[in-house]
Amino acid sequence: MLTLDKIYHARYVLRDAARVTDLLFAPKIKPGTNVYLKTENLQNTGSFKLRGAYYKISQLSEEEKAHGVIACSAGNHAQGVALAAAKNGIPAVICLPEGAPISKVEATKSYGAEVCLVPGVYDDAYAKALQLRDEKGYTFIHPFDDELVIAGQGTIGLEILDQIEEVDAIVVPIGGGGLASGIAFAVKSLKPDIKVYGVQAEGAASMAASLREDEIVCLEKVSTIADGIKVKEPGDNTFALCRDYVDEILTVSDDEVATAILTLIEQHKLITEGAGAVSVAAVMFDKVPKEHKNIVCLLSGGNIDVTILSKVIERGLLKSGRTDLLAIQLEDRPGQLQKVSSILAKLNANVTSVYYEKASEGSNITDCVIRLNIETKNFEHIAQVHKTLADHGFKLV
Amino acid sequence: MLTLDKIYHARYVLRDAARVTDLLFAPKIKPGTNVYLKTENLQNTGSFKLRGAYYKISQLSEEEKAHGVIACSAGNHAQGVALAAAKNGIPAVICLPEGAPISKVEATKSYGAEVCLVPGVYDDAYAKALQLRDEKGYTFIHPFDDELVIAGQGTIGLEILDQIEEVDAIVVPIGGGGLASGIAFAVKSLKPDIKVYGVQAEGAASMAASLREDEIVCLEKVSTIADGIKVKEPGDNTFALCRDYVDEILTVSDDEVATAILTLIEQHKLITEGAGAVSVAAVMFDKVPKEHKNIVCLLSGGNIDVTILSKVIERGLLKSGRTDLLAIQLEDRPGQLQKVSSILAKLNANVTSVYYEKASEGSNITDCVIRLNIETKNFEHIAQVHKTLADHGFKLV
Repeated sequence: MLTLDKIYHARYVLRDAARVTDLLFAPKIKPGTNVYLKTENLQNTGSFKLRGAYYKISQLSEEEKAHGVIACSAGNHAQGVALAAAKNGIPAVICLPEGAPISKVEATKSYGAEVCLVPGVYDDAYAKALQLRDEKGYTFIHPFDDELVIAGQGTIGLEILDQIEEVDAIVVPIGGGGLASGIAFAVKSLKPDIKVYGVQAEGAASMAASLREDEIVCLEKVSTIADGIKVKEPGDNTFALCRDYVDEILTVSDDEVATAILTLIEQHKLITEGAGAVSVAAVMFDKVPKEHKNIVCLLSGGNIDVTILSKVIERGLLKSGRTDLLAIQLEDRPGQLQKVSSILAKLNANVTSVYYEKASEGSNITDCVIRLNIETKNFEHIAQVHKTLADHGFKLV
Repeated sequence: MLTLDKIYHARYVLRDAARVTDLLFAPKIKPGTNVYLKTENLQNTGSFKLRGAYYKISQLSEEEKAHGVIACSAGNHAQGVALAAAKNGIPAVICLPEGAPISKVEATKSYGAEVCLVPGVYDDAYAKALQLRDEKGYTFIHPFDDELVIAGQGTIGLEILDQIEEVDAIVVPIGGGGLASGIAFAVKSLKPDIKVYGVQAEGAASMAASLREDEIVCLEKVSTIADGIKVKEPGDNTFALCRDYVDEILTVSDDEVATAILTLIEQHKLITEGAGAVSVAAVMFDKVPKEHKNIVCLLSGGNIDVTILSKVIERGLLKSGRTDLLAIQLEDRPGQLQKVSSILAKLNANVTSVYYEKASEGSNITDCVIRLNIETKNFEHIAQVHKTLADHGFKLV
């Protein structure tokens, strides 16, 4: 059974492996609310997962340690187990589905683990891991449904209470539920007045569904950019702990998550992955009850693929009026492009790409369409560009 | 004259305004070297500039405070002065050149300062600020060449010595030289064995030129993506202090800075602006002498425009083999695009854009060229894509 003792013990054991991550005041997230960010994205390996994995592995018997450990993950748990095993001086094998991003594979290898790429999807890699466990005598390290793993994650709750005196609510991402279970248990045991909210992605709200039905629900399909919490069903332990200690489960959309990622970049200079930003998304988009004055948002991890990061930023620029795609119909004769460019230059709209094409049916045969990507200041600036082009007789299509 | 006393006093005064920023261990920056990151990009206002501005303003007489302060800056100093003035409860006017990024203007306003947009470039805004000072009796807050401002920045040196026992070298960005002067003075006064290196952008190496000539050199033209340190000439105070206390000035290229920004994002989940990443660039690209085992890199700020960030990431993806632009010449007949797409799909190369055009002269009149942006895993993957297309008879142009 999970006890506060175990969480305190985990904190003691973790003193050499995990950083006490900073709690940053973030007044611009939600004007009028004191938001604090618990920066587990700056934890070693880039996520909180190291805590649970390290504590679990440290408590294995000498014989178990000698055989080594195995885990299955395409993400943060893989890196957590790999580094935790290395720091305990024992071998680790990580099964990953073959399509896993190369950056995650490389990161896992860099901590010294043996990587086993399994054809197929996550479930295939999981089956392979269990098979190897049985064949080779490895200990399987579950990503969340394990009391010692949960105790390790619970150390974050102790740290938060050390770092801030007045806190009304703590907002925590939920995938399998290990993080929320550990933090909620620790916090409610010591200071039961603090509310603990779990946040899931709309497209993968398995804990929310399970608590609603009061039994574990397995979703058929999960879809979200927050891949760190894209989990089909909670575990037995985490279901029971979240039911007893988490006050409410909130959900956020992918668009809300993307906005939160961009806000954390611009306002707080922090990179978070999708799962890492759901707590901030929940606060920004008023999912958390308004009565709370002092809110801690847990940023669970920062391991976002740069390709995805680049898309989030592009989308953010578009949504905040800092880029625009113009399509202008013009007569196919000399000087037209020059006219357009000089208008844009005068308005300080920087052109980043140009694409010229013949016009489609319905327009004059001599017409053509020019498509330009421009950098703008805001939506007013875009409106000004559109109006000025129209005033000069150019037709936007 | 700058004294250690003043820096200690600044630390005392700053306890309510500035954060003691975290020092993060960053072993992956330079394998074999213990690199630590002093995260002033996570300082309030997103840069260290708050420290000097706040200390300077706090030491004004009551009469000076009543008149308010003025500063000229398009960047971090503007935000530092704005917040420092607000926290001291006095009015502030910030002159910015009219073309300043809207994000910086908004950030400055958000701290309660009055923004004065001046037509022209930085020098025009500077002249306007001096004119307003004379007309209205404001105190002008210099961005670097002021003893109290330098003392404020020097508090970072005290913090570093508190945060880490063994340090062989500290690497600090240099623009005007206020930051480097303060840190070098503090560190050398207490622990003279520690080397202090200043880093400038190749395209704006005014302190390097001045120390080489042993007199203040004013560069005619400065150009770098590290706009926070794009300074034409050092000040009298900072020139003398850097001459006496900084061991050596190193320079880095814009490409090296861009790589450092991307590395900090991927490995350490931190956003830095160009100036903020030059210290890491200097270590990554072997500008710092190899004998040092424990190196602190100062990340001076994180206020990078998202548009520029997006470009840095795009370029980083290209340079690390994670995107590729294919141009394939093919006969203009049905089924060709389908063939190409099916090859790319089999190789797991994700297509992100397609552009179809008539071929240029020199090729058959019936030929056309298809340009595709694809997402790839690494350079080997790109080579495999190229080879497979060639094996199927497609010509890459």
